[in-house]
Amino acid sequence: MLLKSKIDDLKKVLTNEQVLFREEERYCYAEDSANIRRETKLPDVVVFVETTEDVQRVLRYANQHKIPVISRGAGTNTVGSCVCSEGGIVLNFSKMNKILEFNPDDMTMRVQPGVILADIKNLAESAGLFYPPDPSNFKVSTIGGSIAQSSGGAKSFKYGTTKDYVLSLKVVMADGTLMKLGSGTIKDAVGYHLNQLVVGSEGTLAIVVEAELKLIPKPEANALITAYFDSIETAVEGVNGIIRERIFPATIDFMDRNAISTVEKFYPNGLNTEKECMLLIEVDGFASSLGIQLNRVEKALRENGASDVVSVFNKDEMEAVWTARRASYGATAKLAPDVVTDDVIVPRSSLSKMVCGCRDICKKHNLQVCIVGHVGDGNVHPQIALDLENDEEYKHLMEAKSEIYSLAISLGGTISAEHGVGIEKISYADKVLGADVIEQMRRIKSVFDPNGILNPGKIFKL
Amino acid sequence: MLLKSKIDDLKKVLTNEQVLFREEERYCYAEDSANIRRETKLPDVVVFVETTEDVQRVLRYANQHKIPVISRGAGTNTVGSCVCSEGGIVLNFSKMNKILEFNPDDMTMRVQPGVILADIKNLAESAGLFYPPDPSNFKVSTIGGSIAQSSGGAKSFKYGTTKDYVLSLKVVMADGTLMKLGSGTIKDAVGYHLNQLVVGSEGTLAIVVEAELKLIPKPEANALITAYFDSIETAVEGVNGIIRERIFPATIDFMDRNAISTVEKFYPNGLNTEKECMLLIEVDGFASSLGIQLNRVEKALRENGASDVVSVFNKDEMEAVWTARRASYGATAKLAPDVVTDDVIVPRSSLSKMVCGCRDICKKHNLQVCIVGHVGDGNVHPQIALDLENDEEYKHLMEAKSEIYSLAISLGGTISAEHGVGIEKISYADKVLGADVIEQMRRIKSVFDPNGILNPGKIFKL
Repeated sequence: MLLKSKIDDLKKVLTNEQVLFREEERYCYAEDSANIRRETKLPDVVVFVETTEDVQRVLRYANQHKIPVISRGAGTNTVGSCVCSEGGIVLNFSKMNKILEFNPDDMTMRVQPGVILADIKNLAESAGLFYPPDPSNFKVSTIGGSIAQSSGGAKSFKYGTTKDYVLSLKVVMADGTLMKLGSGTIKDAVGYHLNQLVVGSEGTLAIVVEAELKLIPKPEANALITAYFDSIETAVEGVNGIIRERIFPATIDFMDRNAISTVEKFYPNGLNTEKECMLLIEVDGFASSLGIQLNRVEKALRENGASDVVSVFNKDEMEAVWTARRASYGATAKLAPDVVTDDVIVPRSSLSKMVCGCRDICKKHNLQVCIVGHVGDGNVHPQIALDLENDEEYKHLMEAKSEIYSLAISLGGTISAEHGVGIEKISYADKVLGADVIEQMRRIKSVFDPNGILNPGKIFKL
Repeated sequence: MLLKSKIDDLKKVLTNEQVLFREEERYCYAEDSANIRRETKLPDVVVFVETTEDVQRVLRYANQHKIPVISRGAGTNTVGSCVCSEGGIVLNFSKMNKILEFNPDDMTMRVQPGVILADIKNLAESAGLFYPPDPSNFKVSTIGGSIAQSSGGAKSFKYGTTKDYVLSLKVVMADGTLMKLGSGTIKDAVGYHLNQLVVGSEGTLAIVVEAELKLIPKPEANALITAYFDSIETAVEGVNGIIRERIFPATIDFMDRNAISTVEKFYPNGLNTEKECMLLIEVDGFASSLGIQLNRVEKALRENGASDVVSVFNKDEMEAVWTARRASYGATAKLAPDVVTDDVIVPRSSLSKMVCGCRDICKKHNLQVCIVGHVGDGNVHPQIALDLENDEEYKHLMEAKSEIYSLAISLGGTISAEHGVGIEKISYADKVLGADVIEQMRRIKSVFDPNGILNPGKIFKL
């Protein structure tokens, strides 16, 4: 717990109004979006930074006094990346939420970390441009959080993740120094890609105070095709067939039988609950190409045993289908008092084994699971419904998670595709990366943050 | 100069046949593809590694004895990244040239560093897939060199550079330890992006012995449109117009008046030598979309004053146009005994200033320059013809280069887009990155390579 004198110091470093220190206020910034039990602490103090200089001042003070500093955007993270493992100062970026510059001709946008993704997307679209990363929480989550977690989304298969759209970053280092990493040009071959090192580092290396993002022309039209399969395996074969037809869908999502029937139970939408798997495939491009793309997609799907193949062109109808897919989390939440989601990824050729394995693991532990994910990438999100207050169920959840991670690793995959490691997956990161690589990351961390003040206790133990 | 005893040691570490040490042999591995004068040394010894274990053994020995190790692919680099600034061991990768695995369904390929880019592209295409990075030397250059230099090419505007296609790397560290960086899955949010840190590090952080590459579906068709403009400025306006039409060309290349007339002089191709600038725009996608794309491109170009707008669909005719574009380097070489190429990048909105500035600088220094480049990215390649043996001309070349870099920086750009820093641009890297960032890179270098044996004297001085 920080001494009152330090909190008073911070009020001088900033202003009174920027510093929250009462217990009831600090509770509001103590958790992320996961429901899981964690050994976390309340932040000692929450500061609302408004300028780069504010961030520098706080960092200088914190570094001098070796106080942990945890950056916080919208708090939508699910692995505990923005919670306090040992107290400290929470840097709240909600007031650094300005779009500083938008250059449609250069196809770039310069933003502060607190800008909501949806605002970036909307402004880009107003000029016919596109910022593709689309985590499902993009209407509330911030670009700072996206950069910290290297977030992806349904369109990552075709369009990549946040790292592919970060041209340059202005960061405040642990000692308060301001640095620009990367040049802001579309290509850059001058020295190490330090900007790419900071993307995905979960606030442990440096604090992002500004980002220059790359935009691309927005495809003029899109359409959706849905189909059902008798097994995950044949669904994956269908997807392979689509690629062989040289179609590059923007999104290839799936819902398993449990996810379908759970959505139908609570939010009836006319989904076919008799099948093992539903694919949702979105293609985009020139309006005149959609018919050809859908024909070929349909052909590939049918050749691999798809049924109920339906094409959707109408925007509202497409939105209704996506709403059903997104409803799976909320629907699963209705099966039990709580729901937790996870995030593993394997090569697509192992997707069926991963999904079936998740089910077997959950069955063994008597847990209800609805599985959704992105088939294109091989990214699987098991959503497990349970009562977190029930110690027995909680124990089974922890065991199931561990087994799911081991399975992902054994199938040539990894324990997180887009949610990050945070505090939740620390002990598994060791396993998937190996001691040598973790040690290398530790050494890099110590170059950036010799006093270990930046988001301690995340990704790996120091 | 290495003692004979050390060379004898290396013959034991490997085999006699893998070690070249005679002066006349070492000369063959002393230079890259640039003609520039440099203060370099002959390698002391050239070793032909054949396995990962070979690389580990050599590194262990070199690290113990603090001998520099310089990796070499095809030697096509132009900034001195693969030459020896202080002697040492050249690791020749020409025998580690196997494609280890190709998974069309997972859209991945696992390769050794000595594999030629064209082989990767061709194998991918045999399955309807696409490895986009296309430096102009892709028929001879290796993937190891591409990774070291983060190389791009004409298609980077739409498809990105090498970094966007590296999923995981197996690397040998300075002390001989083998590490796998990155997971090989399409997305990966587990820890720092060390693979992205190694891409573009010019062999100074670790030695790549294996890479897992991401492939994408190959667009089924492409077409080319050429047009002429009375100024670079209107050509850029034309390109902005194309983006506003929501067309995303794969390539937007240009040749300036000097490049056009020099090509016409030596390799007549019917180019219009009366205009200031020629644009070469390639669009790709579904065959049925090409007409629409070309119509919109043509509209945008004409609205901005283009003349002689010609569409080309036929493969051979397209190849002829690209051959004329690529001939500009060879043609420029005929203007004088030597030719040197350079590589700067600015935001597209500053491209006209960059190109006109390059011309003014060269005129001032009485140097002939033909300028080509990638308008989409803002990447400019001035090709300067001169007699490198003439001390006066050489002095002017050096001054001109320095002024060109300063101009790029002042326009918000940087000193290399895709060629790297090597030894040639060391003193300018300082200027563009700033002392703090360079110092940070130095610290990271010392984490990877405490004895400073990996490609010393490149990117920055230790």
